[in-house]
Amino acid sequence: MIGGGGHASVLADILMGQGREIIAVISPDSISERPIFDGIAHFQSDDAIEKFSSSDVKLVNGVGFLPRSPLRKKLYQRYTAQGYEFETIIASDASISSYASIASGAQVLTRGIVQTGATIGENTIINTGALVEHDCYIAAHNHIAPKAVLCGQVTTGEGVFIGANATILQNISIKNDAVVAAGATLTMCLDKNTTHYPIRSTEKYT
Amino acid sequence: MIGGGGHASVLADILMGQGREIIAVISPDSISERPIFDGIAHFQSDDAIEKFSSSDVKLVNGVGFLPRSPLRKKLYQRYTAQGYEFETIIASDASISSYASIASGAQVLTRGIVQTGATIGENTIINTGALVEHDCYIAAHNHIAPKAVLCGQVTTGEGVFIGANATILQNISIKNDAVVAAGATLTMCLDKNTTHYPIRSTEKYT
Amino acid sequence: MIGGGGHASVLADILMGQGREIIAVISPDSISERPIFDGIAHFQSDDAIEKFSSSDVKLVNGVGFLPRSPLRKKLYQRYTAQGYEFETIIASDASISSYASIASGAQVLTRGIVQTGATIGENTIINTGALVEHDCYIAAHNHIAPKAVLCGQVTTGEGVFIGANATILQNISIKNDAVVAAGATLTMCLDKNTTHYPIRSTEKYT
Repeated sequence: MIGGGGHASVLADILMGQGREIIAVISPDSISERPIFDGIAHFQSDDAIEKFSSSDVKLVNGVGFLPRSPLRKKLYQRYTAQGYEFETIIASDASISSYASIASGAQVLTRGIVQTGATIGENTIINTGALVEHDCYIAAHNHIAPKAVLCGQVTTGEGVFIGANATILQNISIKNDAVVAAGATLTMCLDKNTTHYPIRSTEKYT
Repeated sequence: MIGGGGHASVLADILMGQGREIIAVISPDSISERPIFDGIAHFQSDDAIEKFSSSDVKLVNGVGFLPRSPLRKKLYQRYTAQGYEFETIIASDASISSYASIASGAQVLTRGIVQTGATIGENTIINTGALVEHDCYIAAHNHIAPKAVLCGQVTTGEGVFIGANATILQNISIKNDAVVAAGATLTMCLDKNTTHYPIRSTEKYT
Repeated sequence: MIGGGGHASVLADILMGQGREIIAVISPDSISERPIFDGIAHFQSDDAIEKFSSSDVKLVNGVGFLPRSPLRKKLYQRYTAQGYEFETIIASDASISSYASIASGAQVLTRGIVQTGATIGENTIINTGALVEHDCYIAAHNHIAPKAVLCGQVTTGEGVFIGANATILQNISIKNDAVVAAGATLTMCLDKNTTHYPIRSTEKYT
């Protein structure tokens, strides 16, 4: 398990519920605040990974992905280049169509839904309760944040971030490294590196 | 199965997962791009339906419903008038209260929720992950799109469309053929044929 | 069961599905319109509660909580002070991490999700399909309305109301008795007693 923060703890919870063993947590930070990691070896340097043979272990990418944070993708590319394989994680209560395709190293968390004819790219996160509708094509290194809704036939390029509870209408295309903010509704295609913000809410003191 | 597009493929996925047999797909368009339909007879003309006796087969309305598209309702009315019955479809992982009422020909898809005291009209779609709260009354020929949220005691007339991930507050009444856009939040009642749009998001290039 | 309205009926549906017995409904209003309560004793005055010994029965707080309605909290405090215990209710299809903490008298309804490291306070409602992500701290007497989404590490004070399908970004802090309106996206911390409204949608007649 590379990473010891919130995303790593949610993945650990899924894996342990499936009876899987986590051999070690690799994180520069303390993990002692998280009881879920109790009893698991902790290494603070990435160098520890190379103590394990790529034929003996699978890696889990427990580093999250917020807009324009390159670390998750870099870790994935560095260790796959060295011959390591990243585990594909599918929560037991996720709903994945038999006619969907989930690439190696992708992660579909609790109650995520991937419908008929949809494709999920490698190292992509379909976070808790997110919905990827029929015939969507989601490329590699995306993060579809919790409860985001992608209607039918949405396509994304690499490195796209769709914020929590955002809504993407059907047939929309989103290019590489674009960002849709949390709670936004996207009704048009989005260019490379673009960010789509909703008009933010106002506040009223009562 | 009338229709061979996205909605039809999602319904087929649900039915086949329940061990049901789909005898034929009726669609003017090619269905060869969709592996889920492999091995199922394909007829391009609606006339093919009448080759089957209404006592031998049930129809499935696989035609979707976007705002102001009359086809789905027309097909339903045409073939029920001829004595055919449309199958009621309830996904195995939908959550339907024992105290809810689901009319003939309604479709509740994957992870849809219909709570205590709610009523769903004939030929209405409760799409993937949508929530119909307690005591809602949803009339015939509605489409409650994916992940839409209807709070308690919402009532709708016939032909209403509620877009993906829209939110309807409690006790609201929506009249015939009204439309709530995807991602919108509706806090007041909506007249016949009205469309409710949210203020759309702005874009910012970074 | 204290209360005989919509919230009470949804709780009754969950409890009866779990084979639990509801001895009586306490409500000043008629409950005859709700078939789910058929055959259950009905008392119109709160005084009826004291006919039952606090060692023989558990109470269920079936009174809902809308912004600034003090009744639910008052009932809870009044009867716990008298030695009664309020039942903790967790729907059978809710998803609760083994590393989450749910306080006494909290209610997690159908398809609610509480992730690793999250804490839910006493008498708090996590309503249908709501998501409380990893490491959130939700204090007592909150109502997280249906399908609301709280990202990681959100903290709330007592008496907070988060509206249906609202989105709260990660690490945000919401102080006592604050309100987030339905469908809103909250990107900053919220002071005590503050209400956060989204810019409301416009309407267009077509």
